[in-house]
Amino acid sequence: MFKPTDWKQIREQNPLIHQITNVVTVNDCANITLACGASPVMADAVEEVEEMVSISNALTINIGTLNQSHIEAMCLAGKRANILGIPVVLDPVGVGATHFRYETVQRLLREVHFSVIRGNASEISTLCGKRSGKGVDAAGTRAQDLETEFRSLANDLQTVLSVSGPIDYVTDGSREAWISNGTPTLSQVTGTGCMLTALTGSCLGTGLDPFVGALLVLVAVGVAGEKAEKACLEEDGIGTFRIKFFDQISRFTGEELIKDGKVRVNHA
Amino acid sequence: MFKPTDWKQIREQNPLIHQITNVVTVNDCANITLACGASPVMADAVEEVEEMVSISNALTINIGTLNQSHIEAMCLAGKRANILGIPVVLDPVGVGATHFRYETVQRLLREVHFSVIRGNASEISTLCGKRSGKGVDAAGTRAQDLETEFRSLANDLQTVLSVSGPIDYVTDGSREAWISNGTPTLSQVTGTGCMLTALTGSCLGTGLDPFVGALLVLVAVGVAGEKAEKACLEEDGIGTFRIKFFDQISRFTGEELIKDGKVRVNHA
Amino acid sequence: MFKPTDWKQIREQNPLIHQITNVVTVNDCANITLACGASPVMADAVEEVEEMVSISNALTINIGTLNQSHIEAMCLAGKRANILGIPVVLDPVGVGATHFRYETVQRLLREVHFSVIRGNASEISTLCGKRSGKGVDAAGTRAQDLETEFRSLANDLQTVLSVSGPIDYVTDGSREAWISNGTPTLSQVTGTGCMLTALTGSCLGTGLDPFVGALLVLVAVGVAGEKAEKACLEEDGIGTFRIKFFDQISRFTGEELIKDGKVRVNHA
Repeated sequence: MFKPTDWKQIREQNPLIHQITNVVTVNDCANITLACGASPVMADAVEEVEEMVSISNALTINIGTLNQSHIEAMCLAGKRANILGIPVVLDPVGVGATHFRYETVQRLLREVHFSVIRGNASEISTLCGKRSGKGVDAAGTRAQDLETEFRSLANDLQTVLSVSGPIDYVTDGSREAWISNGTPTLSQVTGTGCMLTALTGSCLGTGLDPFVGALLVLVAVGVAGEKAEKACLEEDGIGTFRIKFFDQISRFTGEELIKDGKVRVNHA
Repeated sequence: MFKPTDWKQIREQNPLIHQITNVVTVNDCANITLACGASPVMADAVEEVEEMVSISNALTINIGTLNQSHIEAMCLAGKRANILGIPVVLDPVGVGATHFRYETVQRLLREVHFSVIRGNASEISTLCGKRSGKGVDAAGTRAQDLETEFRSLANDLQTVLSVSGPIDYVTDGSREAWISNGTPTLSQVTGTGCMLTALTGSCLGTGLDPFVGALLVLVAVGVAGEKAEKACLEEDGIGTFRIKFFDQISRFTGEELIKDGKVRVNHA
Repeated sequence: MFKPTDWKQIREQNPLIHQITNVVTVNDCANITLACGASPVMADAVEEVEEMVSISNALTINIGTLNQSHIEAMCLAGKRANILGIPVVLDPVGVGATHFRYETVQRLLREVHFSVIRGNASEISTLCGKRSGKGVDAAGTRAQDLETEFRSLANDLQTVLSVSGPIDYVTDGSREAWISNGTPTLSQVTGTGCMLTALTGSCLGTGLDPFVGALLVLVAVGVAGEKAEKACLEEDGIGTFRIKFFDQISRFTGEELIKDGKVRVNHA
């Protein structure tokens, strides 16, 4: 499990998080990174990503709005991060939706080692060789039904899988945890997944163990969603909920996360 | 006219809306799509747009921040959508401002059939062959003065024109409607037009008649603007208005839209 | 110093501000431009930037998420603006972070004359030949320690330097001003710098003297930050602060800025 100081460390160390991400949620990713106490830098030109990642404390790669020049930048940055021992987080957005995304993720997995791969159950199951229909939303795929496959994939890739859903799941192949915080309202806001990835990078940028970092962030986002919902009035809707979600992330103490987290950890 | 269930259908069917749009308002488009009950997917790489559109229920094309590679993607996605019978909505942002935009729209109109073309009166009048000065804002151009031209253009293109302005206008060449909901404050927020387009795509994704869908969305955005303004306090400004606008779209019932809509419909 | 009417002029003249900016904060830049009373247009394709800038009243160039095709567009638009006498503002985001950014800015400075260059003390000191470590944040660099270098750079480049920080600094080489408005919370929101640049472009679009315009905008953003903070409740966080910041910019009167501005002006 995580300690209250694990969350506090982000603000104290203020790590720089290099993010190669999509145009839909890039502003949200920058703001959530600042909200938790880290600093974002977005750069995706092949001319500069290797230099940028080398001054950063973690790298996130998100394929939400992929194009050919981004792929080269992702590979260059990822490989350089691996050489320098900088943790890398992958967010395989909609990997089951098109061959282009699927093949890009296969290339990334061949060329780069990821400390954490974060996605919904549908996306992560695609990485296990199960391609689903719609490919963008989690639809009916549930982590609970894929525990064995996910543990095995984590072992194969020597990575931590951080699987968001109604009940979140994290595993590094031996350790595993289930998190039952959150609210369905979180899925009515774009970028919840991308922000989970940005926050995971922020935690890893402090040197935190990837399994613990992924777990901590799933709790943080779940609890922030619960508190944001409670803070909304009868007449509020999704716009206000989203703002209050940012409010929560910027105000959390590590102690609150311990107190409000609904976590079940299994050790192999 | 529309029925209360036409709006409700969006949340019930949860159509997937493929959007090739601009970088300025892409986050707003994704959030407003979720707010009304549909799901957004943004993808603009030529490598994947045909596959992405084929799993979607509608496609929107917005030229707000155009570049050469987007144009190819727009044509590919649009043509595939036409073949598959998936409705396509065009938003010719600032089409009168540069030759690049004008010629791109001409190419799109040659290669793709659009179910709805949505723009302000200045943009739509440019499509009638009248190029205006500033080209980005509606300026002084009014739908009221261009009714004949708009009906004739709708007939020529076999499309529905959805023209936003102080008084909105919709026509499919025979049917036409005027909507007098809204508030000038809506034009002080970026992306109101782009969100109209995203919402129109969301309606069409349920299989709704394009004329009825375009009309429904103009009413919805107008009424949401009115309610957002009423919900603002004396000390609030444009930031709060924008959040409350999202709140409204996420909370509407179809019955409210019937009750509050100020619509005059003419049948040819 | 500025006059109350200098701020009011933006809303009265409603200048069109062409912005070639980054994908992280482009939505914020558009909304803040509208909030102060100007109109934004974003366009970065080489095919259209010269035509777009020619119908605009000012141009801003921001290198926050640079790529090769943007560089060509920036040079084309900047040179055309210079020929037409349209003021150009440069925001050298993270210029010290990578050689790609540094060399791009050197090229821009060779090919385009800027009315104002706006950045934090670290970025502007990089332009004086002092490259710093992290390169993205202002870190420990303070305008107070670099006054001589900044005045000299302003003279060399025949420009106004607008340097944001805990205490802001503006100089055109002879005149200089210090502004001590603001709150540290502003640096916890992404895009504060980019929005300063968008607002500076909006002021210059009215024909305002660049030194006065840069000064006015630093006061406006500082005062808006102070008021937004005061308007926040105990339970609010960074999300609400950001919305209230937009509220303030959209509501200001020039008189308030005179009353609340903490400015010290020196004339050489």
